[in-house]
Amino acid sequence: MQLIITKDYETMSQMALTHVQAHMYTGDNRRVNLSITAGKTPERLYQLLTEEYKGNPCFKHVHFYNFDEIPREGEETGVTMNDLIRMFFDPAEVPGELIHVLDTKNWKDYDKKLKEDGGLDMLIMGLGTDGHFCGNLAGTVEHFGMETRMVTKEKYPISYFERETSPDHYVTFGPKTVMNARHLIMIINGSHKAEIAKKALFGPVTPEVPASVFQLHPNYTVIMDEEAASLLDY
Amino acid sequence: MQLIITKDYETMSQMALTHVQAHMYTGDNRRVNLSITAGKTPERLYQLLTEEYKGNPCFKHVHFYNFDEIPREGEETGVTMNDLIRMFFDPAEVPGELIHVLDTKNWKDYDKKLKEDGGLDMLIMGLGTDGHFCGNLAGTVEHFGMETRMVTKEKYPISYFERETSPDHYVTFGPKTVMNARHLIMIINGSHKAEIAKKALFGPVTPEVPASVFQLHPNYTVIMDEEAASLLDY
Amino acid sequence: MQLIITKDYETMSQMALTHVQAHMYTGDNRRVNLSITAGKTPERLYQLLTEEYKGNPCFKHVHFYNFDEIPREGEETGVTMNDLIRMFFDPAEVPGELIHVLDTKNWKDYDKKLKEDGGLDMLIMGLGTDGHFCGNLAGTVEHFGMETRMVTKEKYPISYFERETSPDHYVTFGPKTVMNARHLIMIINGSHKAEIAKKALFGPVTPEVPASVFQLHPNYTVIMDEEAASLLDY
Amino acid sequence: MQLIITKDYETMSQMALTHVQAHMYTGDNRRVNLSITAGKTPERLYQLLTEEYKGNPCFKHVHFYNFDEIPREGEETGVTMNDLIRMFFDPAEVPGELIHVLDTKNWKDYDKKLKEDGGLDMLIMGLGTDGHFCGNLAGTVEHFGMETRMVTKEKYPISYFERETSPDHYVTFGPKTVMNARHLIMIINGSHKAEIAKKALFGPVTPEVPASVFQLHPNYTVIMDEEAASLLDY
Repeated sequence: MQLIITKDYETMSQMALTHVQAHMYTGDNRRVNLSITAGKTPERLYQLLTEEYKGNPCFKHVHFYNFDEIPREGEETGVTMNDLIRMFFDPAEVPGELIHVLDTKNWKDYDKKLKEDGGLDMLIMGLGTDGHFCGNLAGTVEHFGMETRMVTKEKYPISYFERETSPDHYVTFGPKTVMNARHLIMIINGSHKAEIAKKALFGPVTPEVPASVFQLHPNYTVIMDEEAASLLDY
Repeated sequence: MQLIITKDYETMSQMALTHVQAHMYTGDNRRVNLSITAGKTPERLYQLLTEEYKGNPCFKHVHFYNFDEIPREGEETGVTMNDLIRMFFDPAEVPGELIHVLDTKNWKDYDKKLKEDGGLDMLIMGLGTDGHFCGNLAGTVEHFGMETRMVTKEKYPISYFERETSPDHYVTFGPKTVMNARHLIMIINGSHKAEIAKKALFGPVTPEVPASVFQLHPNYTVIMDEEAASLLDY
Repeated sequence: MQLIITKDYETMSQMALTHVQAHMYTGDNRRVNLSITAGKTPERLYQLLTEEYKGNPCFKHVHFYNFDEIPREGEETGVTMNDLIRMFFDPAEVPGELIHVLDTKNWKDYDKKLKEDGGLDMLIMGLGTDGHFCGNLAGTVEHFGMETRMVTKEKYPISYFERETSPDHYVTFGPKTVMNARHLIMIINGSHKAEIAKKALFGPVTPEVPASVFQLHPNYTVIMDEEAASLLDY
Repeated sequence: MQLIITKDYETMSQMALTHVQAHMYTGDNRRVNLSITAGKTPERLYQLLTEEYKGNPCFKHVHFYNFDEIPREGEETGVTMNDLIRMFFDPAEVPGELIHVLDTKNWKDYDKKLKEDGGLDMLIMGLGTDGHFCGNLAGTVEHFGMETRMVTKEKYPISYFERETSPDHYVTFGPKTVMNARHLIMIINGSHKAEIAKKALFGPVTPEVPASVFQLHPNYTVIMDEEAASLLDY
């Protein structure tokens, strides 16, 4: 694990940009598969990345994958893809053939698809206050060997989806899917994340704190601001 | 996980040699850190490796680490190091400065030492019939976040050490120590390993089958003979 | 440059196999592009590789490229591809979609194609007694920046093609095409290669000894038998 | 070659920083060897890098090497090291044990030292208006196989050293030394570099334009501003 503490949200976002760019500017056309996150944490990252990406001819070999999806009633795109389109794919003008959609229709074969596509080179994600990553809410991870799966209402803590009507089900990469990516980047900001950050980064590795599993990954980068890092002894 | 099924023990050993060589012939002098296994499984591998290594000037940058050690009463070297010296270090004439000893005196700082040495590039190990790797016997792994540790008599299943007087204690890399290596290679042979191989490679990821954790590693190679693979649907 | 001296032709071929395998067993499905040589030197290598390849499910992501071609009157395949089919593609049952043909019809766009395919991961070649590699005969290299090109009768030393009727023209990767591969492997055997090996490996870097340019490559492996190495001070 | 065109000097410097950081934030402690440039072009890069480096605990494994040196009469440090100390090592508080000095006393064994240190992971340099890199002025490169060497007054074009009294001699990595680094980065800015940039990047590979040799490198990144790129057809 490499721990990078930055002054604030802005410098965290810039440092995340630097790490994402390192995967995108490879100097050759070897295919690169990146799995990226929606949510609030990466908003500034996507603004910076959009400036970099738009009109830049260097990225034709860089493919993007969403790692979870919550369907929206009567809409074709789910919550995650909708966010990614709004924050990044649309303003950056990412060509459609570089965007790989995970949704409630294709999730069953997704681990196989990822393997056939050459595996993920990098996955960037945030940390939930319950220790979740992607859609692996605390309480929904039976063991770390779970792959891409559908989680139904009975399984997840109803309190989680405050912002919107609680969905009947959603799909998400499992812990095994994520761990099999070659490089994991986690971005964390804000004092309300300090306690769970301490647990996830330095506590026991247990399905109760899903993100604790990344302590086992041989190439794991954590970029967090000082507030989120305030409880760490590093 | 890459699964390589070979005809028999001899071809398994040759394939293991090929993978170990891939780490040793790097073409430059960048330091390479390899952690290697004792026990019965790698005997033929070490014969082949010794032929390759002895007198070969290409390997001055290749460092070796043992990953567990069982002390022997009244002896300076433990069971593991004694085996490695007999099977490989002595016949291959590996220079002492390339051999890094883990023992009951220095285990507490060993994860820190590994990090300071640049981390492990590769670790090759066998699989126990109880699903163990290194000294992580089934029943001794509380959670996968354990690092290098001492295991005392009260903790491990006494039945395990049939070959020798049961030791009071031994030291071993923990699951986290091993998972943090950049490449894991497991070699398995014989029909008596078929059942546990199936569990470890395709069963649930659980501390009860310690080696199941490697399903989560992004760079994991399994080399096994047909007998060991006989129960797999691959 | 990494220099590996082996006892004889058989051990040279086995060592070459080891290095080729290191590129093929990548443990994931990331596309791998290998450019391989025809001629006499690799005959035994292809026997060994065929044993390894045939029926092995691990290599669906490994693509092959020939690096030169001499057309044959009234035949669809040229000398090089014909050799590769006979020595490797046919006996190993390499699927057609993994074989990328360079010929006198498509050479003009070949450097562009290589780039679009993600670049070459490895190129393995022999050394001519005149210092040539691929079809870059001594006397045909004006400067090292040359890419894939056609060489016509007026340009090459007529004496070279003893074995067959001298062709009107042939096509070949240029020095720049080869140097842009990520890993170069050269195999050399026999005392008749000793003098040119010394020049190519340790003499001045000059278009007069085309293979001398590889001294400049950051990842260059030379595997040679003792006879070929007999004039080296290594 | 990967070509990255940026708007201006400031964005060129930021892009260079991103690429240098990609080598420094490796997430483990594996030794990283970087060779860095003095001169005017990287001034802003060093300001940005200093901000990043100072007090940051992530870089204990990152070693720095100067690649040329011009001795100064009666001074212990030469022109290059003096510049690097002033622009980067001092303000960033780089520990002395991470700084490897090339000077007129130790140049003879420097290629050997680089190899023993594990080779250079990255070298960043500027481009001279005569096509030079490091101290390889046009007219001083007999062939691209030259290693680290001393250049004396008789050999170099006296007109070059306008800024200071012409030195009797200086030392520099040769083309081979530089080409053997795993990643090359060149930064170029300003309209006065447009003509030579075109030659170096797309012209014939010839010792008369020393930097043209990098067209042969498998991992070469060029970061240039629009003015320097104004004559390119890209």
